[in-house]
Amino acid sequence: MTFQKKYEEYAKIVASLGIHVTEGKYVLISCPVIAADFGRMVAENCYKAGAKDVIMLYNDEKFSRMRYDHAKKEVIADIPFWQAERRNLYAREGCCNVSIIADDPEIFTGADSEKMMASAIASKKAFKEFYDIMDRGGVRWTVVAYPNPQWAKKIFPNLNEEQATNALWEQIFRTVRIGEGDAQDNWAKHDVVLKKRAKQLNDYAFSCLRYQNGMGTDLSVYLPEGHIWYGGSEEDREGIAYFPNMPTEEIFTMPHKDKTEGIVYAAMPLVYQGAIIDGFYLKFHKGKVIEYGAKQGEAVLKRLLDTDDGSRMLGEAALIPYNSPIRETGLLFYETLFDENASCHLALGECYPNTIRGGEEMSEEELKRCGGNKSVNHVDFMIGTADLSIDGITADGKVIPVFRDGNFVF
Amino acid sequence: MTFQKKYEEYAKIVASLGIHVTEGKYVLISCPVIAADFGRMVAENCYKAGAKDVIMLYNDEKFSRMRYDHAKKEVIADIPFWQAERRNLYAREGCCNVSIIADDPEIFTGADSEKMMASAIASKKAFKEFYDIMDRGGVRWTVVAYPNPQWAKKIFPNLNEEQATNALWEQIFRTVRIGEGDAQDNWAKHDVVLKKRAKQLNDYAFSCLRYQNGMGTDLSVYLPEGHIWYGGSEEDREGIAYFPNMPTEEIFTMPHKDKTEGIVYAAMPLVYQGAIIDGFYLKFHKGKVIEYGAKQGEAVLKRLLDTDDGSRMLGEAALIPYNSPIRETGLLFYETLFDENASCHLALGECYPNTIRGGEEMSEEELKRCGGNKSVNHVDFMIGTADLSIDGITADGKVIPVFRDGNFVF
Repeated sequence: MTFQKKYEEYAKIVASLGIHVTEGKYVLISCPVIAADFGRMVAENCYKAGAKDVIMLYNDEKFSRMRYDHAKKEVIADIPFWQAERRNLYAREGCCNVSIIADDPEIFTGADSEKMMASAIASKKAFKEFYDIMDRGGVRWTVVAYPNPQWAKKIFPNLNEEQATNALWEQIFRTVRIGEGDAQDNWAKHDVVLKKRAKQLNDYAFSCLRYQNGMGTDLSVYLPEGHIWYGGSEEDREGIAYFPNMPTEEIFTMPHKDKTEGIVYAAMPLVYQGAIIDGFYLKFHKGKVIEYGAKQGEAVLKRLLDTDDGSRMLGEAALIPYNSPIRETGLLFYETLFDENASCHLALGECYPNTIRGGEEMSEEELKRCGGNKSVNHVDFMIGTADLSIDGITADGKVIPVFRDGNFVF
Repeated sequence: MTFQKKYEEYAKIVASLGIHVTEGKYVLISCPVIAADFGRMVAENCYKAGAKDVIMLYNDEKFSRMRYDHAKKEVIADIPFWQAERRNLYAREGCCNVSIIADDPEIFTGADSEKMMASAIASKKAFKEFYDIMDRGGVRWTVVAYPNPQWAKKIFPNLNEEQATNALWEQIFRTVRIGEGDAQDNWAKHDVVLKKRAKQLNDYAFSCLRYQNGMGTDLSVYLPEGHIWYGGSEEDREGIAYFPNMPTEEIFTMPHKDKTEGIVYAAMPLVYQGAIIDGFYLKFHKGKVIEYGAKQGEAVLKRLLDTDDGSRMLGEAALIPYNSPIRETGLLFYETLFDENASCHLALGECYPNTIRGGEEMSEEELKRCGGNKSVNHVDFMIGTADLSIDGITADGKVIPVFRDGNFVF
């Protein structure tokens, strides 16, 4: 398959599988300026699938960085109504949303962290309506990647920019199952596997998962009653399937925010706000991080944990076999969309309300009472190693092996 | 001077001369995605000059074209509040506005003209507040160019894309007076020349200009009482100077919309909504076009004239010597910003309220009574030839030669 064929196929499946555009839908596309060509190709597929309109929201991380360097904190924290409305309006109408990410992992290195935090908090508030509707199944959404040359160079430091970018393209195509056979078929098969795993875990309805490995991880993650494991495609409130992430290898659910106990060691570096946190551990008691340390980026980790109450508690637990095709590339992508699919991970911060029964209809307070976490942050960190063991503990105390040597037992 | 030096100088004078950024200002930058690098450089200069914030509004003509091809007319004509507000809000605060243009002259060839018109009318309405404030001196604004490869190829069809783009860059730098000496000094000197010409014409206070040439043009353009000739920099209501166009070679004023008589032949092709109108003439009676014809694009010309009442009447008369540096490039730029500065021109449609005494404070009705034209359109067309003569007729009937053989007499 030529590059052009793969590229076109990619744009096509973003529209068809990613957000599953249907007649009369508004589609928002958050598109980095460097990915304009790809954004347009996705847009064209959306129009052809009957979209009422495509709202192309171009963004530019280089300009964002400049803005952090020059504009005052109060200016950055003041998100005008029009900016909120250009998302919220379409969520109200039940739109689809594509986020194309093409981030230089180091673009925000050295930027003013207070301003970045102020911006994150203000955004969360300004786009609350959008996210609330999305969390309640009112928006079909997907996150997909596009190679930024700086990002590619970070992954492939020994290649020149053009070679690195091409190499990253190949990894993107491979991990989104383009190149061999029909991509739609590949995704359908993949979805069956993920759904089967999720069903098995849902059938067990574990009250706790215990993670252990040779790094020293010994963590008990308690799961709330009624938690739901998801994998692969999800359904919006109309019952239409979409893939929130492409690629995706994970099955995931909601931990009880107040019950995590023990210690966990990160298996991979974490990129947070353009800075790298590496060689870190977190110690939990009653759900909260009570101790932590990092070989690199400890101050950044502290800032992350101190953002708000919810940033010290878990919002997601995801299981990915060590033999996942993304792990098997042997690459560190410096990008959550990929790295989270290479390794079992947990997330500090916000939960997904759909990962508990009735969660999409719960108020914030109800959700919290059931163990759902709220935060400005949702930051995945990787904990899956080749020797990871996970036991599931059922409500009646039975211990069921879930992972051995980094992979699913069943 | 290296390319990089010129490029940086260009971004600098856009911020300093074009909009004259001062402390605490909001700056809007309308930036084509292909010009993101340049837009950022302008933004940085704005921040360094004390801008409170820069609002970067990326646009993409390729996506716009796609939208015209796919979205329904009623969708295109429905400009949501947030889109209007993202300009109007900042005008209310007294912002500066940079428009970077990088248009492929043929991007809209064959696009649905009804949709384009619907969009133009809806935009005019949605951004009325913005334009009203701008017309009344509340926004310092500038229009500058950036080479689009397709545009460059249109000007230099015998060069390859890269060569053509470089050639266009050189023309842009030259016409914005970058490359020899200090650009700020060059502009200051140029401004003195333009202001001197404007003053002379203001002192004459002609009631009519009569244009004649060998093509057959014989047109009497009557000027309203109190009309003002402008050239070069203008002043906003704070009395701060800025250059609305870079480059600029014109001095211009407002014709009386109801009084033009005679016939005028276009000296150059006109690009309107991505289509070319060439070899055309317009015959006026009592201010209105009553007859017209074109060798190419007559249907497009008809559409332009039929847009609204004001599209058949004049809103601007501008004088540019045939020996203008832009004319002397010998190039047809297919872009009004350049071509209008190569040739005497007239504009069909909207007038500039500041070109009549007190116009900025007049209501729409008052302005109309004084001869000021209102329209969705403001379309410049070129009438200056090497043999153009213009006589000015004073209130007491004296005939003063203004142009002979295409150039200013004084």
